[in-house]
Amino acid sequence: MSLTAFDSLITGSLLTDPDTAGLFGDDAIIRAMLEVEGALALAEADCSLLPAEAAHGISEACNSLVIDPATLASGTARDGVPVPALVAELRKAIDPDHARFVHWGATSQDIYDTGLVLRLKQAIKLHETALFELAEQIADLADLHRETPIAARTRMQQATPTSFGLKAAVWLSALLRHLERLEGIRSRVLLLSFGGASGNLAALGAHALDVESCLAERLGLSVSPAPWHTMRDGLDDYAGWLSLVTATLGKIGTDLILLSQNEVAEVRLGGGGGSSTMPNKVNPVGAEALIALARQNAGLLGTLHQAALQEHERSGANWTLEWLTLPQMVVATGASLAHANRLLGSLEVNTEVMRETIVDSKGLMLAEAATFALAKHMPRPEAQAMVKEACKIVTISGLHLFDVLAEAGDAPVDWQALKDPGQHMGASDQMIDRVLETFESLKAKS
Amino acid sequence: MSLTAFDSLITGSLLTDPDTAGLFGDDAIIRAMLEVEGALALAEADCSLLPAEAAHGISEACNSLVIDPATLASGTARDGVPVPALVAELRKAIDPDHARFVHWGATSQDIYDTGLVLRLKQAIKLHETALFELAEQIADLADLHRETPIAARTRMQQATPTSFGLKAAVWLSALLRHLERLEGIRSRVLLLSFGGASGNLAALGAHALDVESCLAERLGLSVSPAPWHTMRDGLDDYAGWLSLVTATLGKIGTDLILLSQNEVAEVRLGGGGGSSTMPNKVNPVGAEALIALARQNAGLLGTLHQAALQEHERSGANWTLEWLTLPQMVVATGASLAHANRLLGSLEVNTEVMRETIVDSKGLMLAEAATFALAKHMPRPEAQAMVKEACKIVTISGLHLFDVLAEAGDAPVDWQALKDPGQHMGASDQMIDRVLETFESLKAKS
Amino acid sequence: MSLTAFDSLITGSLLTDPDTAGLFGDDAIIRAMLEVEGALALAEADCSLLPAEAAHGISEACNSLVIDPATLASGTARDGVPVPALVAELRKAIDPDHARFVHWGATSQDIYDTGLVLRLKQAIKLHETALFELAEQIADLADLHRETPIAARTRMQQATPTSFGLKAAVWLSALLRHLERLEGIRSRVLLLSFGGASGNLAALGAHALDVESCLAERLGLSVSPAPWHTMRDGLDDYAGWLSLVTATLGKIGTDLILLSQNEVAEVRLGGGGGSSTMPNKVNPVGAEALIALARQNAGLLGTLHQAALQEHERSGANWTLEWLTLPQMVVATGASLAHANRLLGSLEVNTEVMRETIVDSKGLMLAEAATFALAKHMPRPEAQAMVKEACKIVTISGLHLFDVLAEAGDAPVDWQALKDPGQHMGASDQMIDRVLETFESLKAKS
Amino acid sequence: MSLTAFDSLITGSLLTDPDTAGLFGDDAIIRAMLEVEGALALAEADCSLLPAEAAHGISEACNSLVIDPATLASGTARDGVPVPALVAELRKAIDPDHARFVHWGATSQDIYDTGLVLRLKQAIKLHETALFELAEQIADLADLHRETPIAARTRMQQATPTSFGLKAAVWLSALLRHLERLEGIRSRVLLLSFGGASGNLAALGAHALDVESCLAERLGLSVSPAPWHTMRDGLDDYAGWLSLVTATLGKIGTDLILLSQNEVAEVRLGGGGGSSTMPNKVNPVGAEALIALARQNAGLLGTLHQAALQEHERSGANWTLEWLTLPQMVVATGASLAHANRLLGSLEVNTEVMRETIVDSKGLMLAEAATFALAKHMPRPEAQAMVKEACKIVTISGLHLFDVLAEAGDAPVDWQALKDPGQHMGASDQMIDRVLETFESLKAKS
Repeated sequence: MSLTAFDSLITGSLLTDPDTAGLFGDDAIIRAMLEVEGALALAEADCSLLPAEAAHGISEACNSLVIDPATLASGTARDGVPVPALVAELRKAIDPDHARFVHWGATSQDIYDTGLVLRLKQAIKLHETALFELAEQIADLADLHRETPIAARTRMQQATPTSFGLKAAVWLSALLRHLERLEGIRSRVLLLSFGGASGNLAALGAHALDVESCLAERLGLSVSPAPWHTMRDGLDDYAGWLSLVTATLGKIGTDLILLSQNEVAEVRLGGGGGSSTMPNKVNPVGAEALIALARQNAGLLGTLHQAALQEHERSGANWTLEWLTLPQMVVATGASLAHANRLLGSLEVNTEVMRETIVDSKGLMLAEAATFALAKHMPRPEAQAMVKEACKIVTISGLHLFDVLAEAGDAPVDWQALKDPGQHMGASDQMIDRVLETFESLKAKS
Repeated sequence: MSLTAFDSLITGSLLTDPDTAGLFGDDAIIRAMLEVEGALALAEADCSLLPAEAAHGISEACNSLVIDPATLASGTARDGVPVPALVAELRKAIDPDHARFVHWGATSQDIYDTGLVLRLKQAIKLHETALFELAEQIADLADLHRETPIAARTRMQQATPTSFGLKAAVWLSALLRHLERLEGIRSRVLLLSFGGASGNLAALGAHALDVESCLAERLGLSVSPAPWHTMRDGLDDYAGWLSLVTATLGKIGTDLILLSQNEVAEVRLGGGGGSSTMPNKVNPVGAEALIALARQNAGLLGTLHQAALQEHERSGANWTLEWLTLPQMVVATGASLAHANRLLGSLEVNTEVMRETIVDSKGLMLAEAATFALAKHMPRPEAQAMVKEACKIVTISGLHLFDVLAEAGDAPVDWQALKDPGQHMGASDQMIDRVLETFESLKAKS
Repeated sequence: MSLTAFDSLITGSLLTDPDTAGLFGDDAIIRAMLEVEGALALAEADCSLLPAEAAHGISEACNSLVIDPATLASGTARDGVPVPALVAELRKAIDPDHARFVHWGATSQDIYDTGLVLRLKQAIKLHETALFELAEQIADLADLHRETPIAARTRMQQATPTSFGLKAAVWLSALLRHLERLEGIRSRVLLLSFGGASGNLAALGAHALDVESCLAERLGLSVSPAPWHTMRDGLDDYAGWLSLVTATLGKIGTDLILLSQNEVAEVRLGGGGGSSTMPNKVNPVGAEALIALARQNAGLLGTLHQAALQEHERSGANWTLEWLTLPQMVVATGASLAHANRLLGSLEVNTEVMRETIVDSKGLMLAEAATFALAKHMPRPEAQAMVKEACKIVTISGLHLFDVLAEAGDAPVDWQALKDPGQHMGASDQMIDRVLETFESLKAKS
Repeated sequence: MSLTAFDSLITGSLLTDPDTAGLFGDDAIIRAMLEVEGALALAEADCSLLPAEAAHGISEACNSLVIDPATLASGTARDGVPVPALVAELRKAIDPDHARFVHWGATSQDIYDTGLVLRLKQAIKLHETALFELAEQIADLADLHRETPIAARTRMQQATPTSFGLKAAVWLSALLRHLERLEGIRSRVLLLSFGGASGNLAALGAHALDVESCLAERLGLSVSPAPWHTMRDGLDDYAGWLSLVTATLGKIGTDLILLSQNEVAEVRLGGGGGSSTMPNKVNPVGAEALIALARQNAGLLGTLHQAALQEHERSGANWTLEWLTLPQMVVATGASLAHANRLLGSLEVNTEVMRETIVDSKGLMLAEAATFALAKHMPRPEAQAMVKEACKIVTISGLHLFDVLAEAGDAPVDWQALKDPGQHMGASDQMIDRVLETFESLKAKS
């Protein structure tokens, strides 16, 4: 069935990437749970809780068994969780003498959540790689366009000139922080979930923590000091990270769409879609997707935090709510990263138009610079007043601000030199360096 | 692919109902768009804009053509909307002399949104029917349990006795308001979307509004005075309705779960799921789903309202965000109604336990009643003070409050009679009548 | 204290309007609750439940008493609701013989919620008036600019010409639907809340429904068939309306900001704020506020729907959550309407620039029109291909599309006449009429 | 004015704590901005950009000046930001020869955001202290109740026995992770915002980064490699932390309310509020506030992430949206921590009732334990079937499960010993140790 825009064969191509999607399909869900059941049996054999032979039988079945997701449907509808039905299928596939040891001492949530964590581990790796790739692309842009003047725009109005390289470096700076955040995220998300019926592993007797330790090692996960069946801050914090990433990409998408408006045309986005009726149009489809996915994640993040108020030792309602939200967020993040990498890869930067925008402002975008130039020779409020007055004349006369100012006073300012947009890059160059250095040191560490 | 919990073959059975789901699968999406393209051609022929023969050729192809959703994937990824690819497929299936008239004067959004509205029309009908069925079940409950005493609980503490029938009537009262709201919803949602490239139907020349009118009639939809390509209040209001419905069902689910706690045990929920490790447990799976679906809808509603800030004459980003949210909400509502009907159908009401809860409070739940009984014979603050004092004695001694009060004073109150929980139903009976009468008049109208 | 941006003396001027704010201050909250207590006493005297003299004493005290909000602080912190402390203050101000009849048979929530409804009644009236005022302004704009060509923009790219009057009429159409929705909203929100401790009015004995009826009449509210202590769909639906209104205004604000970018400059917003460092800038402060308030309301709406899952007969947690969300939404809506009215009142429309934008596109915005003009003389796909080819030549050569097309073929099209943007208004005029007629009939009804 | 429930003198006492509130009032906002303006002048003098005398004059005025918030109202409404009005007030208070150097090279957002960060630094400290205090209380609880049996409840049904100390340790484990997260949060939030008009500090010429460095040092903040005017991931991540904290407290509040239901009565909450009509009731007001504040924060978090899609170099709309959301979140977190500390401080734990709940289940809560005991002597599926059958007999007969099992088979299990709830604590003791050790090592580091 394909009910949501993510799953639809029609729109899924726009809203997902194959790699992340591969971790959240039914087959991947089942495979991960079987991996946990298999490792559990081996870990319990490690601790002499199960016969080694039985454990190997279980483990082999877990490796090779393919369960049709549809066979778990009715059990899941009845139990509210797929694990009992999965365990029943697994038992059927194993010698009865071994089958009785399947799922020994675990609770459904242990299996499901640990399976989820195994998949998230891969998702984090995928997204980290995509982030590095994107960072590399944007770092190149920042480096290349260090000295490319562009109109900074504040509150949706032209402000003063800045460097397009700095604009890119600002984008990059957030991506680098997202990469830095991953260490903390990993340390608090990649945890084994293992508590048994009520969290205290009572069914495993004295072996409990040994089994826990062996199981964690076998699965490459860390041990949590206490069960996290209803303490979801790890997952919720990770979801916050996902939304931070897509929000940054949504911000980049917003900038790109604004810069590619016909009236601005400072960048051109590749791969845009056509219109069914207007042959001239190129729609910024990829950048739009960045915005839509970011807003979806922002909303789902809020809902997921609602799900954190879990009752007692397991919350059916809130756990179900997690299923409805978290996977969508991971998938949306993968799609967003893929879109961003494609967009940056095909971005055409029109440096001429960028420069002309500044020149066309007839010096109005350089009003602040004029004020500071004058302020070396008169009190700043006086300079500000003079510039403000001159701006009015520009608006009426169409003259360049600096010509008006040259006329209006005799401050020894080289107005012609100041007309060059490239003279107004400020500390862009050094700021770009700082960001690129941060990137280098991050790469060195990874 | 099955990425979300709705679409998963594993969990979909828990989170969807087949009827609503049938309206949001890829096939239904395609079918509805083809229906619109077919009707468009016929409407344009009605207005002599197209040759009748071509229109019939198009219409027949639209009726019979089956498009594999996957064929629209790459076009949708490129264009950000499936319609150009759909139109291309459609043209391939038609005599070239007719094919040139396909999609005449329409824009992609006209086709997609009108197709959506056709599906929503069916969804509203389905949900209305399910709401009536549920209302009927709860009305029976309200009627049957008019005189069944139950502890009202306020702020999660036992308060005073009330009637379980009234509790049900309160649930019902909200459902009836949801049914009443449907008239307004229908009048503002079931609208043709037809504006052409920019909303003014310029490509259709003088025939524009005639075509619009014919098309609306053929599809059984109303005409909007102005294009609603970026005015989404109709959809957003409808989404609000969906969330109101699931919130009410979530409230009922909350009550049922609380009443079925082992320590309360005043109702028993049928069809509950088992635990993988605890044979004694019956989990309130259906009621949990009501809560999860309600919270999901509440969150998605907020996100959908974010999507209402659409730029100019069409917003790619916000339209995409609608695709990510609204269908999930409709599907969740269908699932929630199905769960609620099942839950109510198998609800076991333990009237004995309800009564005992009140009796076991040793009169503490009747403290308000005691105050009012005494207040007929003394100032109310005095009565309140006396009762408050007596409550303390009850807590310590285990005596019944009314015995303490009988001892403490000589007000001529028949304390023994007042001990009967059934004496404290207040205006429940009349309130239930009012709600049932509202239901009757609603049924008469429908 | 001023902790939130609404309450701050610094930012409150930007984010509130005095009229709505006047209904949500502490004094207004207290006054409304006292009004309910006073009316309750009189209604109970109407039904011979209280001595008339006592009722009058209570009513007079309720009319004249001024309670310092700070005196209710510690009681509210203890009880989770201000009513017990308010009742205590009220009793102090009344002859003890009458004081004992204060708050007779009511519960705190009855007083608080009915007081809220009384204030919402006024808020709805205020907002309706502001909506009518705004609708009038936009209707004038739509009428005035019926024939003003402007570039329609879809997916953030120039599309085809449309009428600026139609753009305004589209804005108006949503506002009119909001006005139409008010009847349903009022009928389901302006309800007395009166249920006593557990909803069944048990403390009032046989007089219960008579008192309810008298009280509703005295307060000008309707009676709900069943208590709505935990059935909040009326409030939640109203909150949805608030968010629909602010979302529409946020959409208008978005359009205005985009149209007032320096590179577009098709409108100029009055009253914009200055920059602390850039004398030339005029910031679109009012339009930005429309967006911020809309997004705040969208988010709060989602949270309020979360609060609908209320337990049993009264939910302390969820009721508190309503206090945190709903009043902000009402206040935000009032502020948004005030901003919108100011913005529209000072809007400068630059019709020349609007026309030039179209002319400057060298016919690219008329590509669809060219296709349809050619399609009268050749199959549409052929026409489309010819136009597409010509568009490419325009991009390279700088020639006008229609000159290229005139050169390229011999279809008998009057290309010069078609160059006039005013020839491409489509059905704008009739659509504007339909919207204005809807407005007229709405005014006639109100 | 007091429009929101946070600011209301009536409800503010319930929803705020004085310490956090002290950082978000108008006076604190103004003070922090003045602190930044003062430090800016001194830093610029450090770098020889301003005369030292002027800088000292400015700095002194910033230290001593008290600005009435109301004087900034009209300027803020006009400019959309209070800084220009603040600078004007500041200039008025300074010798004109010095006044001209005020705010040199900074933009409004630099001042406002850096002022915010200074206040957040204090808020983080306050909340860290409150978290440590709460952790200490809960650690004591965990330690004290290591061996106190309590019914674990999963999916709102009794499951198996666990230790109340472990329940507390689970709560604690999340609080400890929140404390651990603070290092990363601080490193990415406590940043100077300093970019000038467009982010590149162009107005400061060659001195730019020196001034930046001096200013950061004077304010005790770190330098960001690139301006973060529109890169809000630091703030948004911090907001996520706030919501994680309140969600954990909301979970604890949920547990406490459920445990204090009359029918459960395993804990008793101190300081609960009374009812206006029911003298016997004690409402769990503080725990309810934990839930309401958590849900409010969850919703605001989603909205704040929506605000991250900021346009270009400064977004008026989204910055305003931050003002509407983030301060509420900080304030809510402070209030939530205060409530939690009070609740834990007055918590009465009824260990007798906890034990009785388990005993009263007649062994049904020990069904899993029975299965595992039997599974040592027979295949587990067989054991499960036997126990399941026995559970049915218990439900009908009222016999103890273990007596039924002893009767039913001859497995050599010491059923009498197993009846002791204390035998079923599993690995609780060791898990509690692990959590307490984590706490100790955290304290050692701090």
